[in-house]
Amino acid sequence: MITVCIEGIDFSGKSTQCALLEEHLRGTGKKVKVVHFPRYETPVGALIKQWLAGEVDLTDNAAHLLYEADRYDFIKELEEYEKELDYLILDRFTLSNLAYMTGKGIDTQLLADLQKGLTSPDVTFVLDLPLHVYIQRSKDADRLERDFEYTNRVRKAYKLFSNDSTFLLDASKASPEQLNESIVNFIELYVTE
Amino acid sequence: MITVCIEGIDFSGKSTQCALLEEHLRGTGKKVKVVHFPRYETPVGALIKQWLAGEVDLTDNAAHLLYEADRYDFIKELEEYEKELDYLILDRFTLSNLAYMTGKGIDTQLLADLQKGLTSPDVTFVLDLPLHVYIQRSKDADRLERDFEYTNRVRKAYKLFSNDSTFLLDASKASPEQLNESIVNFIELYVTE
Repeated sequence: MITVCIEGIDFSGKSTQCALLEEHLRGTGKKVKVVHFPRYETPVGALIKQWLAGEVDLTDNAAHLLYEADRYDFIKELEEYEKELDYLILDRFTLSNLAYMTGKGIDTQLLADLQKGLTSPDVTFVLDLPLHVYIQRSKDADRLERDFEYTNRVRKAYKLFSNDSTFLLDASKASPEQLNESIVNFIELYVTE
Repeated sequence: MITVCIEGIDFSGKSTQCALLEEHLRGTGKKVKVVHFPRYETPVGALIKQWLAGEVDLTDNAAHLLYEADRYDFIKELEEYEKELDYLILDRFTLSNLAYMTGKGIDTQLLADLQKGLTSPDVTFVLDLPLHVYIQRSKDADRLERDFEYTNRVRKAYKLFSNDSTFLLDASKASPEQLNESIVNFIELYVTE
C-alpha cells in the first residue's frame, strides 16, 4: 500500500485534491480510500469538532493531544487498510500537528518524538497558499481559521518541517485540475512501494 | 499553595484518604480542594469514562493521550487554585500515567518528557496494595481494573517511578484513620511551601 498525504492550511484545496486523486486512481483500477483528519466521526474527533466550534473549552496543549490521540487511534484501522488497499490518501496527518503546534509556540521536539510511533506517509504534498488568498477564502471560519497571524506561522512551519518526502505546491496559481495532474505525475514517476 | 497527590492502584483507598486529608486540613482552617483524575465531569474525562466502560473503542496509546490531555487541560484551573487555596489535593496525577503506561509496555521516556509541561505535586503518597488484597476488593471492576496481571505491573511501576518526593504506604495493613494520621504527620513535619 502506498500512503499519500495531502497537507496545507485551511482553504488550500486539500479535500478537492484528495477527491481528484482518488477519482484518478480508481479510474486506473486501484483500490483507494481517503481518510480526513481529524476524523470528526470518531469519539475523539467529535470532541475536537466541538472544540473548534467553541462549544468546548480546552487548553491548547490538551486540544493538540486530542489531535494526536485521533491519529494514534487510527492505527487499528490502518492495519486493515494495509491488507486491502493499493493507495491510502490522508487529508492531513502528522505534519499538520507539527505545523499547528509550532504555530502556537509549543515545543515541537516533544511532539516530533511522540509521532515516532505513527506511520509516515510515503509522500506528502503541501498545498501552499499566500496569506492574502487565504484571507479572501476564509469566510465562516472556525476558531483556528479566524486567526490570520497564527495561520501564517502554520504556513511557514509546514515549510520548516518539510523533508525529502514532502513536496510544496503553490495552490493559489494552478487550477485544481492542474494541481491534480502534477500530483498524479509525481506519484507515477517517483513513488513506489 | 501546597499540592499533595494521592496515588495507587484502584481500591487502594485513594478517595478515602483524599476525603480524610481534606477534612483534617479544613479543620485547621486551611482552604482546600480535592480534584479527582481523570476528571469525568469534563469533555475529555467523559470520553475516558466511556472508554473505561467499554462503550467506546480506542487504541491504548490514544486512550493514554486522553488521560494526558485531561491533565494538560487542568492547567487553566490550576492558575486559579494557586491564588485561592492553601492546599490542593490530587487524587491521581502524572505518576498514574507513567505507571499505567509502563504496565502496558509503552515507552515511558516519551511520556515522562511529555509531562514536563505539567505541574509536579510537592509530595505524593502512593497507597500500595498486595495483589491478593486487590483481587478481593475488585468487584464490579471496569476494563482496566479486571486485568490483574496488568494491575500488578502498574503496582510495580509506581515503585519504579518513585522519587524523593514520593512516599509509599502499605494500604492493606493500616486502617484508613491510621493512614490519614501518617499522611497528616508527614505533611506537617516535612512539607513546606
